[in-house]
Amino acid sequence: MKFCLNTIKSRSKYAEVAAAKCHLPAGHTGKCCEYPFLEHLLKVDKRVADKIKRDATMTTGAAWKSEDAGPNRINRWVMLLNDSELLKYGIDMSQLKTGVIAKLREKAADYDSCILVAAKLTWLVYQMENAPVPPSNIKEYLEELFGKMIPNSTVCVICRQPIDYQLFSIAERGKAAIETCHKNPRMHNSDNVGFGHRECNIAQGNKTLDEFYSWIKEIIAKID
Amino acid sequence: MKFCLNTIKSRSKYAEVAAAKCHLPAGHTGKCCEYPFLEHLLKVDKRVADKIKRDATMTTGAAWKSEDAGPNRINRWVMLLNDSELLKYGIDMSQLKTGVIAKLREKAADYDSCILVAAKLTWLVYQMENAPVPPSNIKEYLEELFGKMIPNSTVCVICRQPIDYQLFSIAERGKAAIETCHKNPRMHNSDNVGFGHRECNIAQGNKTLDEFYSWIKEIIAKID
Repeated sequence: MKFCLNTIKSRSKYAEVAAAKCHLPAGHTGKCCEYPFLEHLLKVDKRVADKIKRDATMTTGAAWKSEDAGPNRINRWVMLLNDSELLKYGIDMSQLKTGVIAKLREKAADYDSCILVAAKLTWLVYQMENAPVPPSNIKEYLEELFGKMIPNSTVCVICRQPIDYQLFSIAERGKAAIETCHKNPRMHNSDNVGFGHRECNIAQGNKTLDEFYSWIKEIIAKID
Repeated sequence: MKFCLNTIKSRSKYAEVAAAKCHLPAGHTGKCCEYPFLEHLLKVDKRVADKIKRDATMTTGAAWKSEDAGPNRINRWVMLLNDSELLKYGIDMSQLKTGVIAKLREKAADYDSCILVAAKLTWLVYQMENAPVPPSNIKEYLEELFGKMIPNSTVCVICRQPIDYQLFSIAERGKAAIETCHKNPRMHNSDNVGFGHRECNIAQGNKTLDEFYSWIKEIIAKID
């Protein structure tokens, strides 16, 4: 699909790093829109639409509280800037611990990849059990990007069991039961993302999916 | 082994819940001692001895900060008291969230079980690769409780790979690389405890070991 890609006005202080762009098809009529594929979910289940946008475009927040924990959620593309460029935005990487820097840097992704990740996640959501049914214009849009949508076909990236849309409503101590997962934890692009059960994602940890599967195969070999 | 079991004076405000007792063999000479099996480790590697004592006898601390997060580390046997008995110690369970109460209550264990857990962990430590060599009196003491010690035989409860004693010195963001594990997460006794790699323990999560193994077998079946 060829996107319109007109620049959309944004209040973000990082707009000069990556301007928001219109992702309606080139030559569209009507107003430009950055996330046209999310318009329906925004209406019927804003929480899920917001989660998709957040997971697709933002780094994770600092899960531990301390002065050197680093900035809270920040656009992933900001983390592509080098240390001296980041200083202009008040982010002093030299004050952070090595582990924190690594964690922030590994979330880095360019704007275009993030948008496609958001679209991919939306495509997957609509294929979950008990998901809302997308209007035909959004269905066609997403299918042009990622292929035919098959109802009830979205499975956990890790355990490959179906994921029920209703799990989005389940959260324990503020932690959602469904998490956005990366097959290879260090790459944020539409081929590499999917949804997973929180416990599966935790079990995978820092391993790539292949490393995780090799690891559990070794365990099975040991115990049998 | 028959323990001396003389009461040892303690400054703990919970001494009336469970008095500290001597665990030297009955009829021993010299001063009474609560953890005679830890005397050598206390001298050569206090950090590891303290960890064993802490993991064996204390609940975990509140990992999340909030008013209803519950008390910080507390003796496991205190968590055997009922709500009104706990109130006398200033612990108001009715103020805590259900999940926090469940977490605290599942750590409950009686004093005698905790001492045997500490002894079992000590027995396992001395059988790790690169572990210090125990003096013969402690070796005999532990072997009488848990059987012959075989150098380099201690493996991770979960992945069954050897655990190197030197991993005790490795910690990331205050998290030790070796954790005390429970085969069945809800039972704290010497048969049920062991050491595991932190990442293995995290992967096991709330599952029992058997549930974990069944779960990873299902995953392997799905991906093959």
